[in-house]
Amino acid sequence: MSLIVHKYGGTSMGSTERISNVAKRVAKWARAGHQMVVVPSAMSGETNRLLGLAKELAPSSLTDAYYRELDMLAATGEQASSALLAIALQAQGLESVSYAGWQVPIRTNSAYTKARIESIDDQRVRADLAEGKVVIVTGFQGLDDLGNITTLGRGGSDTSAVAVAAAMKADECLIYTDVDGVYTTDPRVVPEARRLQTVSFEEMLEMASMGSKVLQIRSVEFAGKYKVKLRVLSSFTPWDIDIVEEAKSGTLITFEEDENMEQAIVSGIAFTRDETKISVLGVPDKPGVAYQILGAVADANVEVDMIIQNISKDGKTDFSFTVNHGDYAKTMDLLKNTVVPKLGAQEVVGDTKICKVSIVGIGMRSHVGVASTMFRVLSEEGINIQMISTSEIKTSVVIDEKYMELAVKALHKAFGLDQAPVR
Amino acid sequence: MSLIVHKYGGTSMGSTERISNVAKRVAKWARAGHQMVVVPSAMSGETNRLLGLAKELAPSSLTDAYYRELDMLAATGEQASSALLAIALQAQGLESVSYAGWQVPIRTNSAYTKARIESIDDQRVRADLAEGKVVIVTGFQGLDDLGNITTLGRGGSDTSAVAVAAAMKADECLIYTDVDGVYTTDPRVVPEARRLQTVSFEEMLEMASMGSKVLQIRSVEFAGKYKVKLRVLSSFTPWDIDIVEEAKSGTLITFEEDENMEQAIVSGIAFTRDETKISVLGVPDKPGVAYQILGAVADANVEVDMIIQNISKDGKTDFSFTVNHGDYAKTMDLLKNTVVPKLGAQEVVGDTKICKVSIVGIGMRSHVGVASTMFRVLSEEGINIQMISTSEIKTSVVIDEKYMELAVKALHKAFGLDQAPVR
Repeated sequence: MSLIVHKYGGTSMGSTERISNVAKRVAKWARAGHQMVVVPSAMSGETNRLLGLAKELAPSSLTDAYYRELDMLAATGEQASSALLAIALQAQGLESVSYAGWQVPIRTNSAYTKARIESIDDQRVRADLAEGKVVIVTGFQGLDDLGNITTLGRGGSDTSAVAVAAAMKADECLIYTDVDGVYTTDPRVVPEARRLQTVSFEEMLEMASMGSKVLQIRSVEFAGKYKVKLRVLSSFTPWDIDIVEEAKSGTLITFEEDENMEQAIVSGIAFTRDETKISVLGVPDKPGVAYQILGAVADANVEVDMIIQNISKDGKTDFSFTVNHGDYAKTMDLLKNTVVPKLGAQEVVGDTKICKVSIVGIGMRSHVGVASTMFRVLSEEGINIQMISTSEIKTSVVIDEKYMELAVKALHKAFGLDQAPVR
Repeated sequence: MSLIVHKYGGTSMGSTERISNVAKRVAKWARAGHQMVVVPSAMSGETNRLLGLAKELAPSSLTDAYYRELDMLAATGEQASSALLAIALQAQGLESVSYAGWQVPIRTNSAYTKARIESIDDQRVRADLAEGKVVIVTGFQGLDDLGNITTLGRGGSDTSAVAVAAAMKADECLIYTDVDGVYTTDPRVVPEARRLQTVSFEEMLEMASMGSKVLQIRSVEFAGKYKVKLRVLSSFTPWDIDIVEEAKSGTLITFEEDENMEQAIVSGIAFTRDETKISVLGVPDKPGVAYQILGAVADANVEVDMIIQNISKDGKTDFSFTVNHGDYAKTMDLLKNTVVPKLGAQEVVGDTKICKVSIVGIGMRSHVGVASTMFRVLSEEGINIQMISTSEIKTSVVIDEKYMELAVKALHKAFGLDQAPVR
């Protein structure tokens, strides 16, 4: 008998018919002898509907008191879907009970709308499991020290599920979603993209943070930290698919690095159009310059992704970094009006028509020449590289966004990702 | 400075525009220097929508586990509307915070879907009021000893508001609703019906239990028990109506009996078509008969309203009572198949085409002849009385339902209720 956590996204919970199918699938697992904890999202569209109402009432409030109420509001979506799933399970003849975040409790800090889980009390859930009940735990939400409801941010139910699995020491956490796993790259761009049977959590982390939006990135961090065996699989297979087959489907995100991982050097190609490039040119090359630029940007609550400083020439250097599209105008203003005059830099130039393409692979750690293969491939396609950034298991380049598809396709082929996986 | 509790029904909370108007009205009261606690219902239609989803999933479950989940589900409606109202108040420039029942907490027993309030902790709310915040408390719901969410049944938000007012020792509890007060009778039946400026809580109790569905009956009981000054008034007056005028509008339900109550003998005429009449004829007249009949009925969870036992004749008696339409078939079956054979009674006859008409008035206590006036009026209209039941402050008759309007109109006129109130 294993303890299994299932997580179902909003699309899987989108109607009573779909909730009923989720219940049948969970019932199949329970009847196979597993202890089951299920974490559902709100019914699709519900969170947006609720937050839309709030926006009609107070379009631009930014106070903590306001965010507290947003969490109070948004948390109802998951509470309702959890109760409905418990009812659907009862209709399948199983004993089932649902708990809101505060009932478990799932304790978080007080950062409303983007709270972080601090601890989970597993006592109540464990007692129910021991009595043979299927336990439903609301995703996305928790309780802070002051007794207020908090939510974990978009996609937070993934994190809830992984955190519950970690707290319960579950044997596996299955994330049911509307895709059937993690792919070598987006199949809409490269039709030859292949589903990965396994991917390491570090690779997943790099992919999640770079546009492969299968899982909330924090859930992957959590899984890595607490060694939760995590599987992403489709909720659109028939619910009565053979359970042994289902248990092997999708993509397993594993923390065991040496598990047949030798052959794959590059596991996937991630890409995003979400970023823009900003360069501060002719910066006097002296200590503290990076801090003066990036400190100001951070103070404005802008998250910076890639950062490049060129070598110095004539006592001057160029400084480039990328920020999200949404922060572009604000950051340009800040630099032009405040930072650059103070620094005595020459000018600030920006480019919104860029994209970032990354090759990700845990095998890059032990294989040399992977990055240079990437550069060669891009050069053969006549694609100019504007920025480069590397980590142990990924290499990212910034290129003109019009070459994005071409680059992704060429790299996908060059690293053999369109071939049947060897591992 | 007074402490005032406002309660707003689902229609008043039915859209963001209406919620915004509620916020403006509450803000007006707060700015007039009052400490404000507001208890909103769910947005109209929301509770039905949620329970409809549950019904699609499990049409006929009757277990405690199921009812627990229904409460978990239904409670989200008030949590969402409370958060929205807090946001709307913040948009009006007021500090505001909302609490779900479990956060106050409002403690109840564990009778899911029809729980009773046992206690309310006023500490958290009082601390917020002291800080100048408007406090929103979800209606309709509470927390049981096991940490589960409970709900109070249809109209439960009225009871929440009165209970909060009692716990906070509020100066007045204002129930904003879609009617502008309590009338001498239903204006749809008698256009001359007049709004009462005051009505005693005992009268209100009799009226509430007999078809005047302005307030949930339990809220009136609560108000009487804890001496909460309760006012029913319209939420459809413009929000910026003069506050002094607003504070005097609607109907005040008072527990002070001798407050200008002398002149009114009959305060109102209540009526209902909800009941049916069942008679067990030829019952052996011996001790224990009433118990054998009504005990069996009670065991089947059927609520009995009027009960009449005729005088005995030849050692036999007739036994009549009324039950709700919904319980009629079940009760007839039970009596025919189980009770009557055991009792040795002659037969069971039922009548679903009846109505009950009642005159209610606290002045009946000290005035004789009120009931006989009622009987005379009905007789003058040629209406046959089938059953009579009296209490200290009301007299009810069961008549053929086709005479209901005629009876109500005649009684309304005979007791001078169409005249300008003297009190």
